[in-house]
Amino acid sequence: MSKPLFLPALAQFLAATAGRNMTKAAYAAVVAGITAMVLLTVDPAYEAAAGLIYAVLWICLAFFVFEWGVRVRHAQQANHSHAYLASGRGLLDAACAVGVPLALLLGSDQRSAWLLAVLWVIKVIPGVPGLQQLRRVLVVEARPLLSVLVLFLLVLFLGSVAVHVLERDEQPATFSNVPSALWWAVVTLTTTGYGDVVPITPLGRMVAAMVMISGLGVFGLWTGILATGFAAETRRDNFLKTWESVSRVPFFATLGPSAIADVTHMLRTIDLPPRTTIIRKGQPGDCMYFIASGEVEVDLPGKKVRLGEGAFFGEMALLGSNLRSANITTTKLSKLLVLDLVDFRLLMARHPDLVETIDAEAKRRTLENK
Amino acid sequence: MSKPLFLPALAQFLAATAGRNMTKAAYAAVVAGITAMVLLTVDPAYEAAAGLIYAVLWICLAFFVFEWGVRVRHAQQANHSHAYLASGRGLLDAACAVGVPLALLLGSDQRSAWLLAVLWVIKVIPGVPGLQQLRRVLVVEARPLLSVLVLFLLVLFLGSVAVHVLERDEQPATFSNVPSALWWAVVTLTTTGYGDVVPITPLGRMVAAMVMISGLGVFGLWTGILATGFAAETRRDNFLKTWESVSRVPFFATLGPSAIADVTHMLRTIDLPPRTTIIRKGQPGDCMYFIASGEVEVDLPGKKVRLGEGAFFGEMALLGSNLRSANITTTKLSKLLVLDLVDFRLLMARHPDLVETIDAEAKRRTLENK
Amino acid sequence: MSKPLFLPALAQFLAATAGRNMTKAAYAAVVAGITAMVLLTVDPAYEAAAGLIYAVLWICLAFFVFEWGVRVRHAQQANHSHAYLASGRGLLDAACAVGVPLALLLGSDQRSAWLLAVLWVIKVIPGVPGLQQLRRVLVVEARPLLSVLVLFLLVLFLGSVAVHVLERDEQPATFSNVPSALWWAVVTLTTTGYGDVVPITPLGRMVAAMVMISGLGVFGLWTGILATGFAAETRRDNFLKTWESVSRVPFFATLGPSAIADVTHMLRTIDLPPRTTIIRKGQPGDCMYFIASGEVEVDLPGKKVRLGEGAFFGEMALLGSNLRSANITTTKLSKLLVLDLVDFRLLMARHPDLVETIDAEAKRRTLENK
Amino acid sequence: MSKPLFLPALAQFLAATAGRNMTKAAYAAVVAGITAMVLLTVDPAYEAAAGLIYAVLWICLAFFVFEWGVRVRHAQQANHSHAYLASGRGLLDAACAVGVPLALLLGSDQRSAWLLAVLWVIKVIPGVPGLQQLRRVLVVEARPLLSVLVLFLLVLFLGSVAVHVLERDEQPATFSNVPSALWWAVVTLTTTGYGDVVPITPLGRMVAAMVMISGLGVFGLWTGILATGFAAETRRDNFLKTWESVSRVPFFATLGPSAIADVTHMLRTIDLPPRTTIIRKGQPGDCMYFIASGEVEVDLPGKKVRLGEGAFFGEMALLGSNLRSANITTTKLSKLLVLDLVDFRLLMARHPDLVETIDAEAKRRTLENK
Repeated sequence: MSKPLFLPALAQFLAATAGRNMTKAAYAAVVAGITAMVLLTVDPAYEAAAGLIYAVLWICLAFFVFEWGVRVRHAQQANHSHAYLASGRGLLDAACAVGVPLALLLGSDQRSAWLLAVLWVIKVIPGVPGLQQLRRVLVVEARPLLSVLVLFLLVLFLGSVAVHVLERDEQPATFSNVPSALWWAVVTLTTTGYGDVVPITPLGRMVAAMVMISGLGVFGLWTGILATGFAAETRRDNFLKTWESVSRVPFFATLGPSAIADVTHMLRTIDLPPRTTIIRKGQPGDCMYFIASGEVEVDLPGKKVRLGEGAFFGEMALLGSNLRSANITTTKLSKLLVLDLVDFRLLMARHPDLVETIDAEAKRRTLENK
Repeated sequence: MSKPLFLPALAQFLAATAGRNMTKAAYAAVVAGITAMVLLTVDPAYEAAAGLIYAVLWICLAFFVFEWGVRVRHAQQANHSHAYLASGRGLLDAACAVGVPLALLLGSDQRSAWLLAVLWVIKVIPGVPGLQQLRRVLVVEARPLLSVLVLFLLVLFLGSVAVHVLERDEQPATFSNVPSALWWAVVTLTTTGYGDVVPITPLGRMVAAMVMISGLGVFGLWTGILATGFAAETRRDNFLKTWESVSRVPFFATLGPSAIADVTHMLRTIDLPPRTTIIRKGQPGDCMYFIASGEVEVDLPGKKVRLGEGAFFGEMALLGSNLRSANITTTKLSKLLVLDLVDFRLLMARHPDLVETIDAEAKRRTLENK
Repeated sequence: MSKPLFLPALAQFLAATAGRNMTKAAYAAVVAGITAMVLLTVDPAYEAAAGLIYAVLWICLAFFVFEWGVRVRHAQQANHSHAYLASGRGLLDAACAVGVPLALLLGSDQRSAWLLAVLWVIKVIPGVPGLQQLRRVLVVEARPLLSVLVLFLLVLFLGSVAVHVLERDEQPATFSNVPSALWWAVVTLTTTGYGDVVPITPLGRMVAAMVMISGLGVFGLWTGILATGFAAETRRDNFLKTWESVSRVPFFATLGPSAIADVTHMLRTIDLPPRTTIIRKGQPGDCMYFIASGEVEVDLPGKKVRLGEGAFFGEMALLGSNLRSANITTTKLSKLLVLDLVDFRLLMARHPDLVETIDAEAKRRTLENK
Repeated sequence: MSKPLFLPALAQFLAATAGRNMTKAAYAAVVAGITAMVLLTVDPAYEAAAGLIYAVLWICLAFFVFEWGVRVRHAQQANHSHAYLASGRGLLDAACAVGVPLALLLGSDQRSAWLLAVLWVIKVIPGVPGLQQLRRVLVVEARPLLSVLVLFLLVLFLGSVAVHVLERDEQPATFSNVPSALWWAVVTLTTTGYGDVVPITPLGRMVAAMVMISGLGVFGLWTGILATGFAAETRRDNFLKTWESVSRVPFFATLGPSAIADVTHMLRTIDLPPRTTIIRKGQPGDCMYFIASGEVEVDLPGKKVRLGEGAFFGEMALLGSNLRSANITTTKLSKLLVLDLVDFRLLMARHPDLVETIDAEAKRRTLENK
């Protein structure tokens, strides 16, 4: 089969559906489907509008089957349908598409089978922006987190056996075996404290107090590790982002990773309040600026130009023309990256091959301004 | 109408009321009003003193109506009454002023209508000093916090459907539908654990244990993100504050943002215990000091001068006269910002336009001291 | 009256008692007194050994009265008895000494009066090592912590009024007035969750879920602020400690605060595993070491000398003699502060007055070694 | 007795068992033993398969007895059996081996005696990778953590006596003595909140609210301290790891700790995305790289070589040959440590004894490449 010749909108929708990101239709289907699934279990809602609820569920299911189909065909066209089908993503799409029908075929009653629609909620995960960052923190800090988990299990087992021994004669119904005591220990160690199972002997309560305080300790360690990992990950992210904006500047593009790392380390971050004049016309300039966030206004003769995130200015100061040619002012709270003339020259001293590139750029810009 | 010609105190009170900050009267009205509203719902208090309670409430309401009126008129005079009325602040003021009367007009019974007085408590928010900092942390860390919220919702839905399936036969009264199971899941995942709804089957308890441990994890991530954001915000705040104290020093005022950032980075912070001698008379000096917090005492001939937060001293050392002219001692635990002669000279080398300003300042001070 | 001429041990004990720190006897009295007070409220223990318990309590009380008396007399001798009596410390000592007798005189029954002995536990506070650090964190972070407290109160009031409105018809016994609803809100917002008061209407449960999630948020902010403050405080403490060890080195003692701060910033911290050779005899040396923690062994001819925390070695390398004269090895995991020759010379360049002092020291040591 | 002459596999197993780390067999024995112990307390499982459960338990016990025996004999052979027997490890091994038999001998009933098998779970501790790091955090932060514990105990005692006084008339069954009130206070201060003991008087509830909020505060302090300690420990660990990889580079091996610390501080960390070209053939090189994590591919003529964690490349640039001889590309997200030519030369200037070693190495490598 050749490429589909349908209407362009449909083709675009198919392309979006085949892609890795959730379409708006998919988000709508997840929300509608989950809502309908929840309502299905509520007797008054079911009795009042069973037909409508089932209709919504079947439509959502149809959408997810369609989505799966589009993705399988897209993968076939690119000759990696096996890779897609066996990937976590492919398996989830398949489960979302065939889970409910399969349960119905296997004879499950209808209201129960539709509970599998809860799997649709997992589809949201790849669309969440910061989740990759979270995962990396969990991977990097896996070792200490695992240690805390082992501590958790140790306290769990030791505490539950101790309380089982101390309480089984007083409360045979609730502490007669270790699994029941383990349930109590989990509820206590996580400081959830349902109160359905509570020690009543003085010694049992002492053990319980120790388990609760251990719970605080485990929790504190857990949080401390995650906080540390998160701070490191944020620093790393910031470095990579600075690096990226540096690589986008034309005359840095030819530098190797080491020089870009140098530039990245040389950039100083300054935070400026709104309406601060950064550059005054006619003054000597000694640095260039990159806009990390915020916005500046260049007051050119006859017009005002606004530069946003990612833009840079003042670079002529690094290329010989050291009198500023316009007033530049922040319009909001801005974070700027500053590269000083001194650092720039140090950079050239360490990477002499840069001089040529820069001289060429300086000549090109001077011609352009004439 | 022209400007009010009332008594000056009233004019001042009106100006304060029209301003953005809470007046003391407004704080008193909030406390009195909320207390009266709470007492209104307590039967013994209501029976004993209904008249007094209503009197307090009507007085507080009158104050908030008056406050709203003053602000609307103030906005009209400044020709931005529409902006004020449509702003969050204006809408809150309006709701505080007309909420209760409107409820009474719409036929609500009196004791219930006055419950709307709880809105008055929101008036306190703009007066809280650190709240802006908190808001900025929440804005900067919005992306990872949102991811954690999505994780929270995922665990919530998956856990509640699983427990619904596992427990509905054993406990039809409490787990018969997913919304009830969701209630259980929220209570468990936040480790609140009321104990009104508790799984009793072994499999249900295993799912519950996983939900509780996920609760700890979600909590840890949440706290870790907020801790990281808060640390970054504190560093940023400190930089901006140092910047501010640097800009207040006369001969730095003419520097551009880049040079001020340089100075800010060159300043070293030192913490000194009380009664430490910082400068000894007659010794050669090589640095100047800014007082970030604490206090120092200058032992001048015939008198003792105390310098507090924001002041600076020892600047003569940077301007040629390098023998200290007085003993200077801390009177309490002080945080000082130190600028070394070497850094100061480096600064001048990088910003040659500074030399002139400084020479002029040095001459002025020398004349003054003669 | 002149100074007491009792036995030396008693004089020493009186001096210790008059001092600011807890004596061992005071710790013992607190532990014994609190234990007796707790046992007094337990009926079986009271019936079995009322006499013994009262005896212990009276002895402890006698000790605290004695302690208070010694301190008052000591303060009188130093002419600041008013200052002591009005200080927090003095008021606590007075309350611990006269609280129980006063309650007995005022006609309280004996078992109840002795409950005031719980105040004795507060005596322990000044003896806790890290408490001052904690207090400073709370002071420095007071502003953001206050904001979080205001947020906490806002959620508390808004949540409790909302739940009062939504639940009062269903559960008149528990949500009929706002104070009861406030009790529920505190129990929920702190995620304690007793379960004695629980919303049962769907809307009430939604509000409750929001209150619980706000509880997590408040908790996270709280922890984040404290973690940030604690990290800053730790850094500050470390700087002050390094400073202290630097000031203890004889030829740094004459430096001003700025130079000591320089030295402190120049010191690099290295962590070395046990049994690492730091200095090899006969090799050229280029740095000196301070022992921040751990221990090293100097292998001198004929004997082995161990140097502990606070000691320094290798300083001859900074004073001209640049061949190491002995092997030096760590005996345990050690943290060393390293001052490089280069930094040392930079330091001398910035503080030329140091050269003289150092030359004198070098000559003195060389003579000593001959 | 001489060395055992059994089959090599058994000898190897004995050696592994005698060592400090858990063998796979030991892990299996712990898991099987704990599972059997738990099942032993569950009546249906016990009735169905008592024989099988006891068999598993006896086998596991036999293994631990055997393990203890092997270790004792191994210690005897090395002449430190007393040290082993008295060490924490030796005492644990002994308790695991003789605990259950001893309980049986002392006449305990069989099902109870086997509960001591829970001790086996402690054997897992030395095998957990990050636990040593956790312990060091707890040791370093012991002082502030202790302060928090004292605060915890203070709130506990003051809160429980206050609630005992306020609630004992209303709820004589639950608050009649201080130990019961202490139980309530622990359950509340850790925010566990079972709900078995709850204050009902207004004043009692106010005290309870304060105890709960103190609970949040204590928790926040605890977490903040642990987070700070963990961050410092992580930095320290990273320094030690960088140090280690630096010491493994042949021509750094001869440097003293101070120079290695210099190198460690000079290394810049860069994070590179996959498929980034780090080195281009024929270009001038000015730095060398160490792979901290990730992997690179060297595109040599005729073959592709992959270098993993710990490897280094580009070192010829520091030894005279400054034209890169191959393309080198990352294959995954990699963390590289970069040492610049400039820093390397600075290093040589500060440690002139390095020049010789490096010249020799340069000559050796040049010969090898020919």
